[in-house]
Amino acid sequence: MIGRYDEVSARWGSPDKPIAISDTARAFLAEKVGPARTTPPIPRTKLSAPASRLSDDQRARLQSVVGPQNVSIDDDVRLIHGGGFSYLDLVERRGDSPPAPDAVVYPTSHEQVQELIGVCGQLKIAIVPFGGGTSVVGGVRPEGGTHDAVIAVAFEQMADVLAFDEVNMTVTVGPGITGPTLERLLGVRGMTLGHFPQSWERANIGGYAATRSSGQASAGYGRSDEMVEKIRVATPRGEFRLGRAPGSAAGPDLRQLFIGSEGIFGIITEVTMRIRRQPRDKRYEGVMFPSYESGLRAFREMVSRRATADMMRLSDPQETLTNLTMAADGMKAAALDRYLKLRRVDGGCLAIFGWEGNRTQIGSRRDESWRVLRTNGAVSLGKQVGNGWEHSRFSGPYLRDTLLDNGYLVETLETCTGWRELPELRTAVTDALRSTLRRNGTDPWVMSHLSHVYETGGSLYVTVISQRDDEDAVNQWQKAKDAACEAIVAQGATITHHHAVGRDHARWLEAEVGSQGIDLLRAVKQELDPENILNPGALLP
Amino acid sequence: MIGRYDEVSARWGSPDKPIAISDTARAFLAEKVGPARTTPPIPRTKLSAPASRLSDDQRARLQSVVGPQNVSIDDDVRLIHGGGFSYLDLVERRGDSPPAPDAVVYPTSHEQVQELIGVCGQLKIAIVPFGGGTSVVGGVRPEGGTHDAVIAVAFEQMADVLAFDEVNMTVTVGPGITGPTLERLLGVRGMTLGHFPQSWERANIGGYAATRSSGQASAGYGRSDEMVEKIRVATPRGEFRLGRAPGSAAGPDLRQLFIGSEGIFGIITEVTMRIRRQPRDKRYEGVMFPSYESGLRAFREMVSRRATADMMRLSDPQETLTNLTMAADGMKAAALDRYLKLRRVDGGCLAIFGWEGNRTQIGSRRDESWRVLRTNGAVSLGKQVGNGWEHSRFSGPYLRDTLLDNGYLVETLETCTGWRELPELRTAVTDALRSTLRRNGTDPWVMSHLSHVYETGGSLYVTVISQRDDEDAVNQWQKAKDAACEAIVAQGATITHHHAVGRDHARWLEAEVGSQGIDLLRAVKQELDPENILNPGALLP
Repeated sequence: MIGRYDEVSARWGSPDKPIAISDTARAFLAEKVGPARTTPPIPRTKLSAPASRLSDDQRARLQSVVGPQNVSIDDDVRLIHGGGFSYLDLVERRGDSPPAPDAVVYPTSHEQVQELIGVCGQLKIAIVPFGGGTSVVGGVRPEGGTHDAVIAVAFEQMADVLAFDEVNMTVTVGPGITGPTLERLLGVRGMTLGHFPQSWERANIGGYAATRSSGQASAGYGRSDEMVEKIRVATPRGEFRLGRAPGSAAGPDLRQLFIGSEGIFGIITEVTMRIRRQPRDKRYEGVMFPSYESGLRAFREMVSRRATADMMRLSDPQETLTNLTMAADGMKAAALDRYLKLRRVDGGCLAIFGWEGNRTQIGSRRDESWRVLRTNGAVSLGKQVGNGWEHSRFSGPYLRDTLLDNGYLVETLETCTGWRELPELRTAVTDALRSTLRRNGTDPWVMSHLSHVYETGGSLYVTVISQRDDEDAVNQWQKAKDAACEAIVAQGATITHHHAVGRDHARWLEAEVGSQGIDLLRAVKQELDPENILNPGALLP
Repeated sequence: MIGRYDEVSARWGSPDKPIAISDTARAFLAEKVGPARTTPPIPRTKLSAPASRLSDDQRARLQSVVGPQNVSIDDDVRLIHGGGFSYLDLVERRGDSPPAPDAVVYPTSHEQVQELIGVCGQLKIAIVPFGGGTSVVGGVRPEGGTHDAVIAVAFEQMADVLAFDEVNMTVTVGPGITGPTLERLLGVRGMTLGHFPQSWERANIGGYAATRSSGQASAGYGRSDEMVEKIRVATPRGEFRLGRAPGSAAGPDLRQLFIGSEGIFGIITEVTMRIRRQPRDKRYEGVMFPSYESGLRAFREMVSRRATADMMRLSDPQETLTNLTMAADGMKAAALDRYLKLRRVDGGCLAIFGWEGNRTQIGSRRDESWRVLRTNGAVSLGKQVGNGWEHSRFSGPYLRDTLLDNGYLVETLETCTGWRELPELRTAVTDALRSTLRRNGTDPWVMSHLSHVYETGGSLYVTVISQRDDEDAVNQWQKAKDAACEAIVAQGATITHHHAVGRDHARWLEAEVGSQGIDLLRAVKQELDPENILNPGALLP
């Protein structure tokens, strides 16, 4: 459990399973961005972790709460908990002085978490609640604010299913259970949570709830915050148990203050999530639109005509081209082949749709969807393309590692806005990235997709690849990030649709909720965590 | 505009259109509860309103904000704003000393509301935000807390459509617009809000948002709190504009602190709601189940198999019997006839389902529903029964007036819990009401239905009719209300699913959110309204 990852901390998956870039992909990147350079992270053997700043007495106090075996100051363990997977995290963690918390503590119960918060308050030690450690916005960076020391609190020992109720269709779990484990346990009973963010392999349920994550099939299954029925939270002011019924009008929904609070108000120690029956069947399908505009219109009409799929994703022309060039061979071959046969001109946009349910439901819902798709010029690329996407749906972070190893900057940004505002938002973010990441005479490669559709709009997910400036990597990134965030804010869109705020977006939260909103959040913080023990620096600037 | 209701304030609708009780209904009530007595409210001509406690100077200050014509101390106007439509309100308002606020003020803009809050803070005058005045939980009772005077702020002059966006499928409105007006304006553009609470004829949109109301077709259209995209709020600490995108992970969703806050944190001055295309077709249908258990099982399975209708409602045996006896003649005749033909035994339960959409969608969705219904022994009673229900869907409050005029106590209670807990909850609430409202040797008549289904449970709506004790009407009711609330709390259910907290449920809010939750709400109140100007006594005990 302790030190569960045998890979180096700077990589998403095991270093034994790198994703190689094919020659085609290599040539594509060289043409679009610039040539690859071999730039591996500094190996663990050449690194040392910063010394733990905990005194023996402090360590003993922590041990008295959770037991000596559940407090680790081991360098490997601390380095693994030295941050998440944001670009900034990775730049630091791949470098020669990676950060690390002063200890990693593994409580086994709500009561221990509650006591730990009390002890850390007395000792003035900051706590970073460390879920799966998959934050891409600096949400788990080991920063202690004004405190001298900071510990990561990890939840591998609070990862049990506490209750399973197939009448109410809920499961109650400890925060540390990961998606794959929960899906396996639910699967044997014919159930599913249906929440598949790209971080699924490593993220845990407490993290889902603390960050309002959204899964790839959110159109059909909802966002994680919609799945949370009840939460139990340990705070410096004591325990909260919130969520009394499937629906309620008993005052403001206080759950929503903790969901999305990223650990700054309290630590979620139990979550009751609604579950679904596993669909008997699935149908994933690739579709080609003649243009981005036609795809966007089709997505919008599908929603307003209640003709949605459970998974809906529309790539822009750049992402379409990239996918068709770089994607897994099976998908590429099939898609390219059909695509070329259809002799579509440049600008075609690839979409993936997934319908789930019993065969009759899939059939009638797919018919409804296709009624809209056809009127917007869509052509089916068949199941193989859809299945290819599903097969590689979690491969993004692995591919990012490979690109980082090859001298590229690669970053993803996401936001959300109304249907009407989406095209301009895409242009604005693209322009911001292009103007700030041009390097050695070459523009960055910016591509995006629309996913997570709502009745009133959707989420825009942007990927940018450029040559990395290894002399000044942080500034190079920060300049681009600032420009993109400013563009998002100027367009009236949300600063984050599902990556959360963390430390990287904190400066833009005021644009989102106003100075009154910041004051209100600070008042809640003052009420719940007056010593600012919990995740200082995250969320609130 | 001012004094828009020409009826006496104690009645839901115009006194010209009373709902008469048929002889059958009269006999039914006499048998089940006791004989009717003629007990009309005291007529307006025999009443005087309490004198306004505002000084001339105070009135002038209010007038300086909204204009002289928009401050009324007219007795009729004040009496009309003397409360909502809770049983307690009605007992008071039908009696000889009905309450009234010291003035009714009609702002015309956000800025005026903001200024009004400031002036009232200086003058120590409490504000009751008065939406449609349809609260059935004492949410708009003119109580000023520790302040000497209290005004009702009404929104008839902030009832415009401010923006209509058929790309984003949203409408932005002032808080004062009512359901019928909005539906008419949306209807000419082929759109609908789809929110039809029983209070629809009078309630307004600001009230929906402030109380987390839920409409009869919530299974298909969602709760009102799910429809709110953006809100603008005036508070003593200034303006909030919340809701930046259809989906967001930018920290806690602060909208949810104001939605459901019942005016104690601020006054909602603009609401952006998502809208839907008007369905091309509707199919409402009556269905008979052999038992309550089979109906409950069918409802649960419909949800978990994604085979729901947009409107779903299951009456228990008592409500079934009542509906078949007392309901509008068309429905009764048809239903009874079919019912008897089917020779079902006692205990059969009536359900109403409504599917909306295009014909193909209705057809395939209804087929899916019926696959579940059939396996649970359901028999169709046909469209006529369904249409009969739809036709009389807003008649409840009128019928209540008639029952009050006939010497009965009639009250409705609603709650929500998980599927597993619903049967026991129903028994517990029924027992609580039976044991406290037995009178002159006769039990009250308690009936309920299940509606507002969720994936994990549903709402239980209970109606109770008993003989009214005119000597001690408040205590008679309070004893029963307390017992019912205690039963709800003891069962772990929510104290309110859609009626909200108001003043009548405030004592039970702690059971819902814990003492920590109350402290947190108080901290927010302290931050936003330290002088306790806004709706004192509502929500927080």
